[in-house]
Amino acid sequence: MMRTRPLKVALLGCGVVGSEVARIMTTHADDLTARIGAPVELAGVAVRRPDRVREGIDPALVTTDATALVKRGDIDVVVEVIGGIEPARTLITTAFEHGASVVSANKALLAQDGAALHAAAEEHDKDLYYEAAVAGAIPLIRPLRESLAGDKINRVMGIVNGTTNFILDKMDSTGAGYQEALDEATALGYAEADPTADVEGFDAAAKAAILAGISFHTRVRLDDVYREGMTEVTAADFASAKEMGCTIKLLAICERAADGASVTARVHPAMIPLNHPLASVRGAYNAVFVESDAAGQLMFYGPGAGGSPTASAVLGDLVAVCRNRIGGATGPGESAYAALPVSPMGDVVTRYHISLDVADKPGVLAQVATVFAEHGVSIDTVRQSGKDGEASLVVVTHRASDAALTGTVEALRKLDTVRGVASIMRVEGE
Amino acid sequence: MMRTRPLKVALLGCGVVGSEVARIMTTHADDLTARIGAPVELAGVAVRRPDRVREGIDPALVTTDATALVKRGDIDVVVEVIGGIEPARTLITTAFEHGASVVSANKALLAQDGAALHAAAEEHDKDLYYEAAVAGAIPLIRPLRESLAGDKINRVMGIVNGTTNFILDKMDSTGAGYQEALDEATALGYAEADPTADVEGFDAAAKAAILAGISFHTRVRLDDVYREGMTEVTAADFASAKEMGCTIKLLAICERAADGASVTARVHPAMIPLNHPLASVRGAYNAVFVESDAAGQLMFYGPGAGGSPTASAVLGDLVAVCRNRIGGATGPGESAYAALPVSPMGDVVTRYHISLDVADKPGVLAQVATVFAEHGVSIDTVRQSGKDGEASLVVVTHRASDAALTGTVEALRKLDTVRGVASIMRVEGE
Repeated sequence: MMRTRPLKVALLGCGVVGSEVARIMTTHADDLTARIGAPVELAGVAVRRPDRVREGIDPALVTTDATALVKRGDIDVVVEVIGGIEPARTLITTAFEHGASVVSANKALLAQDGAALHAAAEEHDKDLYYEAAVAGAIPLIRPLRESLAGDKINRVMGIVNGTTNFILDKMDSTGAGYQEALDEATALGYAEADPTADVEGFDAAAKAAILAGISFHTRVRLDDVYREGMTEVTAADFASAKEMGCTIKLLAICERAADGASVTARVHPAMIPLNHPLASVRGAYNAVFVESDAAGQLMFYGPGAGGSPTASAVLGDLVAVCRNRIGGATGPGESAYAALPVSPMGDVVTRYHISLDVADKPGVLAQVATVFAEHGVSIDTVRQSGKDGEASLVVVTHRASDAALTGTVEALRKLDTVRGVASIMRVEGE
Repeated sequence: MMRTRPLKVALLGCGVVGSEVARIMTTHADDLTARIGAPVELAGVAVRRPDRVREGIDPALVTTDATALVKRGDIDVVVEVIGGIEPARTLITTAFEHGASVVSANKALLAQDGAALHAAAEEHDKDLYYEAAVAGAIPLIRPLRESLAGDKINRVMGIVNGTTNFILDKMDSTGAGYQEALDEATALGYAEADPTADVEGFDAAAKAAILAGISFHTRVRLDDVYREGMTEVTAADFASAKEMGCTIKLLAICERAADGASVTARVHPAMIPLNHPLASVRGAYNAVFVESDAAGQLMFYGPGAGGSPTASAVLGDLVAVCRNRIGGATGPGESAYAALPVSPMGDVVTRYHISLDVADKPGVLAQVATVFAEHGVSIDTVRQSGKDGEASLVVVTHRASDAALTGTVEALRKLDTVRGVASIMRVEGE
């Protein structure tokens, strides 16, 4: 079934990703036509700076009036690669109102307002696809939403931010400190001038919200995601991790509680064993580890950012949305029927690695161990080392709730013999 | 949009996979209803031995007349998990004729007759889905066919047979020989009593044909796939691989030629570097490494077989097909528009590791090197070791065509000074 009227695509944003999308639409035009069943045509490109030279894009298509573009009425698919909340949000809802489906790479917007955007898409019987919003080129939304649609996902644990993985990998392999590794990441273009969104975990938290929502058929908003950055990870933490046979990664973890009645989503640095598949994810690569009832353990690995990889994901969605449009159908929309409560961080159960600076005198270990016991946190191993009146104590716990661990640490800080809590690190993937 | 009439599913086959499909349809009924938008109901189960007790399956649903079941006319989806060519093929085409869509896990049938089955599905405007046919639970067909639909796939290289990966992993980690490792795989249930389909690469070749067809939008039949089993891999080969910083895996490799004008598909054991992501795939796990123009390098990892994982893939397809049916649409069908020629093995270009037993006397290396040069095969490294008049020569080549390498080896065998060709192994993933 080949029809001749081309599908019209409006591109919002023509930066690193947008220009790649436009380029591939031109160079792979014949393939796209064959795969969709009709030609796709770039009908307009909304940009902020129209004077910038854009190789391969007809200047007549370029406009600064994005609103007018999405309101044209003849647009089949709007591709939104502007990022940020506004004007992206208004443009997307306006696009639905004027008859277009939408492909977006906007993780921040999807994490914050996914439910409202899905509702707008559904109201107008249009598609909203966003494979590129999580982990760049790695097919993840579609596998979770479709391939595993007959399964029960219990846990999604991933490295979903390439910048922080590059920094942590560098610290691990060279023994560098955080600042030194960040400087190198910046120099190589892996970190932005203001790296806050990456290193403080905001970017990963947005992705965690999206992944949790899809995996558990439950609305999970950015505010529901516990977030801890990785700026305080030290070379000493990596040394401790090595002694444990571990490395440190910034992980996004979405979990169904053991009783199945609630879910959690969180982002924080954690130790993971070197033999875990995520431990060997190097450089700026991303990978997501999925555990489900029937499928067992799956992992998806690939480049998590960059113009070309993100464009690949956008174009995959574009083909799907165009096919749906020709077939008069829409793909799967939001699935939030389970509506499970999202539990706070205190309810999360995991293991902990705690380094304490303590006085080097008899009875300290007994005091510390008593505090753990009083808070119901069971100790797995303790390692004590000391000299010159100073000593350090490394405690690794069995599984305990985050609330119990927090209470333990507060009580430890009050002990005269505890001079300081050098670090607390969660231990995952065991 | 929730409708009340349930979708009716006919299950053909109730072995390890089929019984898991039936079980999950019961235990996850509410989730499936919510995700599909209508209930799904098991309407019939065709088996060969009706007297066998099948826990949780209403005996009234069980029949030995599979043909009558698919001809009933009220069946929405036929799930075929019988395997083999007949009667599966006839049952599937009969199902299409009588109004049902089909979900199949049948790699042998898809590899042999995929084009005809797709044509039958299209003729009757029905879906044919088969995620479970390749690499069990790992989402692969959908990512290749849909997520990467806007990209250009150049190479798919995978470990797609768990039995042989278990055996090779065992040989690698323990130094065991092939027979010993096979015996252990058999004892643990990883290998069948007759392991031919696995160890001779027939199973992997069927999957390679399916993967190549989807990746290159070209019909690739089982007969087009070069196939070499792994029964002749020895402990000595693993020792050689280790010296190269490699391990040995049975790989399915689908490649687009450098000029883009043809494709190849092949299955054979090969050395791969230890730092390649496929090298660390242990036990019976599967993984597929994909290289494309825009996305770059992706990897998909998970359990490649087993009742539950395969059922997960079947049920994902079942949900998709049911949704399509409710929406009055069909998913993507066969895409073979590129119709690229499939080149023979002789055209494949790769590197080779060759072990020769040679006479330990001056001039042998010069003779051997001359033969390589005469056939246009460039040598990367040579390692010579000898004692007591016997010597061995290990040659690692640069990239050369399989035809040139075959010619080289034939000429080497004719040299008086070459007592034997101990092994020839391709080197991939560099």
